[in-house]
Amino acid sequence: MFSEIDHTFMLQALALAERGMYLTTPNPRVGCVIVRDGDVLGAGFTQPAGGNHAEIQALEDAAARGHGVAGATAYVTLEPCSHFGRTPPCADALVKAGIVRVIAAMEDPNPKVSGRGLQRLREAGIEVRCGLLEREARELNIGFVARMARGTPWVRLKIAASLDGTTALENGVSQWITGEAARADGHRWRARACAILTGIGTVREDDPQLTVRAIDTPRQPQRVLIDSRLDVSPRARMLATGDGPAPLVFCASDSGEAATRAEILRQQGVEVIPVANARGKVDLQAMLKALGQRGINELHVESGFKLNGSLLREGCVDELLIYLAPTLLGPGRAMFDLPQLETLDKRMQLTLHDIHQTGEDIRILARLAPASSLSSTTKL
Amino acid sequence: MFSEIDHTFMLQALALAERGMYLTTPNPRVGCVIVRDGDVLGAGFTQPAGGNHAEIQALEDAAARGHGVAGATAYVTLEPCSHFGRTPPCADALVKAGIVRVIAAMEDPNPKVSGRGLQRLREAGIEVRCGLLEREARELNIGFVARMARGTPWVRLKIAASLDGTTALENGVSQWITGEAARADGHRWRARACAILTGIGTVREDDPQLTVRAIDTPRQPQRVLIDSRLDVSPRARMLATGDGPAPLVFCASDSGEAATRAEILRQQGVEVIPVANARGKVDLQAMLKALGQRGINELHVESGFKLNGSLLREGCVDELLIYLAPTLLGPGRAMFDLPQLETLDKRMQLTLHDIHQTGEDIRILARLAPASSLSSTTKL
Repeated sequence: MFSEIDHTFMLQALALAERGMYLTTPNPRVGCVIVRDGDVLGAGFTQPAGGNHAEIQALEDAAARGHGVAGATAYVTLEPCSHFGRTPPCADALVKAGIVRVIAAMEDPNPKVSGRGLQRLREAGIEVRCGLLEREARELNIGFVARMARGTPWVRLKIAASLDGTTALENGVSQWITGEAARADGHRWRARACAILTGIGTVREDDPQLTVRAIDTPRQPQRVLIDSRLDVSPRARMLATGDGPAPLVFCASDSGEAATRAEILRQQGVEVIPVANARGKVDLQAMLKALGQRGINELHVESGFKLNGSLLREGCVDELLIYLAPTLLGPGRAMFDLPQLETLDKRMQLTLHDIHQTGEDIRILARLAPASSLSSTTKL
Repeated sequence: MFSEIDHTFMLQALALAERGMYLTTPNPRVGCVIVRDGDVLGAGFTQPAGGNHAEIQALEDAAARGHGVAGATAYVTLEPCSHFGRTPPCADALVKAGIVRVIAAMEDPNPKVSGRGLQRLREAGIEVRCGLLEREARELNIGFVARMARGTPWVRLKIAASLDGTTALENGVSQWITGEAARADGHRWRARACAILTGIGTVREDDPQLTVRAIDTPRQPQRVLIDSRLDVSPRARMLATGDGPAPLVFCASDSGEAATRAEILRQQGVEVIPVANARGKVDLQAMLKALGQRGINELHVESGFKLNGSLLREGCVDELLIYLAPTLLGPGRAMFDLPQLETLDKRMQLTLHDIHQTGEDIRILARLAPASSLSSTTKL
């Protein structure tokens, strides 16, 4: 159905889309290549929210290079939009420019689009085909797909541990178990996330900044804290305001005893959101819904034993990003606070998505099973 | 120094050597290819102990195919022997056959040879070069190299665990954490070992057969048990005699209280060897020396938390073979009984040797550091 040439140009479009990795949130990362007779006339990728979508970038690129695009094919990694958002519909722009053929990697999971963009193109007489390198395109926007499909972010939980599964010594010492390459890699995952989440235990113990530092990034992800009783010190480093979006703190209550503490935080520019469950803790599913409503596509979690366990037990995790250092630490802190099982059939099952050597360490990406329909099922 | 053609034929010789993987113990796995003017005249690999070495096999193969080998080059993965063992020296046979050039991957680590074979060839006027694909050749005979260099086997400790490092539930349930492909792979590692070792705890709990079953093998490795007090039941499955070498049981003492139990085991054909340390346990280093004296090159360990920990703490382990299943088991049995650390600099450091997906599971080969001079230092 798709030719080798189609593959080649869609791969180019995907490579362009990847250049929006740290950039486009809350929009998806999209790439577009406009081709006629085997020549690339224009190419582009989604700009930061409010800026051009990939199709407009590619059309403008063609114009800047003096090329008309009448009769050309547009390769796009996501169905062109059909609605007015912060920018006018890309489908209309393609029609107007004289594009005669559109090949899309996947439909837009955005319910405001989902097929309507392609339909609009077809109605304008454009030849449209969809599904080329769809798996790769979905992976690139796994968080956007999750948020559109279910209203909550794609949750990636990062762990660093020794080969025998210990994340820290009994006395809490954990810096640094993994090597420099793994730490830089971890910052790449932070950078592509819309938000980074941790728990009050980790803040008390390590006082992390929760920023991207080991690599260059045009924007900092939003920092999110789970702190049921608002025990956090207003001077915690992750609550420093300034660049980037205001830190969010989810608590069980911002009234009564906690009212003063909530007020202090709010005065320094921190957003405080109470979402309690029946046990007087933060309702983690409600927290995810709130993040989804705020446009968080990928949520990167770097937390400790307890919150890691709670997130897993409450079905809030899509993917584990595990770095294993080739070292043995013996007894110490485990990865997750999980219940003791009596039979193996109660175990939490995952599927391997990627195994990789990162410097001296091993990086494992594993997804919670049954693999949600959001994640690709392709094996390594 | 070596041509591409040399590489090609040495790779052939290595591939032949690998065919002796389950076969040659206690001898090394060696391959030989005899070449003249780019034509392979004869090829062979080491036969079971007492049978032909690789060089003789290759010479006989050439003869059987009607080829004289005068003026030919012999590619061998190990220096040809120069001493009378169960067979006459291969170096002499190569000289006699009219070989004019010998390329060896590595010197023989056997102190009875170590350079003397190559010297003998040179003295006979043969052009000799050594060191082509040496790393690969050493890996192939890592156990033989270890035994020759230090008198003890290469010790490979196998573990199957969940991603969170649990090898069994608290109640002991562990079958099966890993999948079928990983279990078959585990049997390949058993098959290449000269001996398989376990501890009394594992025998009590699982009563393993400790045989190679999931794959075809021409021989069964020797079974070895660590059982300080000779608590093992004479009916334990791993002590079943019949095919293959007699099971060995290492204990702290075979006299006094243990005398009767030792006697019963011996009467059923089990070898009982007392080697006590100062704490009245089996002296693990002495055990390894005894196995080395018995010609054990690769020792495959499948044991539990306690013996695993003792072997590691007493410096008896060269390599970990870890299968991680993409599952979370939560609290349960850990991989190794190791002491609680206060600082990270006391951790046991390893180097990754190989990472691999095996079916649904991850297989990790990691070597204890500082990497002994026996193991290659090449990175993945």
